[in-house]
Amino acid sequence: MNVFQVTPIGFIRCAYTDRSQIPKGLGAEHHAEGFLEILPEFKEGLKDIEGFSHLFILWIFHQAEGYDLIATPPTDNLPHGVFATRSPQRPNPVGLTVVELLSREDNLLHLRGIDMIDGTPVIDVKPYLSSIPPERIKRGWLAEAEKRS
Amino acid sequence: MNVFQVTPIGFIRCAYTDRSQIPKGLGAEHHAEGFLEILPEFKEGLKDIEGFSHLFILWIFHQAEGYDLIATPPTDNLPHGVFATRSPQRPNPVGLTVVELLSREDNLLHLRGIDMIDGTPVIDVKPYLSSIPPERIKRGWLAEAEKRS
Repeated sequence: MNVFQVTPIGFIRCAYTDRSQIPKGLGAEHHAEGFLEILPEFKEGLKDIEGFSHLFILWIFHQAEGYDLIATPPTDNLPHGVFATRSPQRPNPVGLTVVELLSREDNLLHLRGIDMIDGTPVIDVKPYLSSIPPERIKRGWLAEAEKRS
Repeated sequence: MNVFQVTPIGFIRCAYTDRSQIPKGLGAEHHAEGFLEILPEFKEGLKDIEGFSHLFILWIFHQAEGYDLIATPPTDNLPHGVFATRSPQRPNPVGLTVVELLSREDNLLHLRGIDMIDGTPVIDVKPYLSSIPPERIKRGWLAEAEKRS
């Protein structure tokens, strides 16, 4: 069995202290600002990051316990496979958020679009380089749920 | 110290057997097709995924050894912080690829846009739901390198 270990490179600092405070469901928008505090030993890895407007943040759902292969998301009342949702109860509890990088101050990244709670461990940061054209994106059950709502 | 363990939910099946075969650098485009074979025990988690045109694939750079906080990418001859690049030599060797989902057959996802080698362990799949408008994306050193090339 392959097992890989990941460890935090930093932590989210923001006003959300509980997941119930984070907007969810159809039309939820994430404009919350907050910070990603990179641990001092990884700070050098941020060189030139301030030139990018958007970043992928990979993080751990550190409060999730176990997983369900079938999830019923807040955006629908129908069950879907966990890999077709953003449920925290996934086999590997890794979260992915696209954020806007507002500024950098030393090892602090000032971000907009936070949907994690304060203290969330972050395992990677990558530059956001290109987008799929919106007209090419099909959003399966989510589009269906929006039509019904 | 926080340590989190991740384990594969499946593996990439494709024609690339060595990273040197994968297009890299400025203007590199990834149109290669291949498969993600989800392990039978996680197959139920794919329910309804066929409605999505694009997916995020989170995977492990399983051949990477160690990391460098400063990387010199194939797209530039200048060094940049690893978190401002897609270098495999990252503190947590997790890769992220946006792929097009062409079809699903049981536990096999037929994908376009593969940039991993055959046998790459995959740790998560998420639906791709929305894009940042291209006119809002700033690409820092990469845009500079493109101008110089």
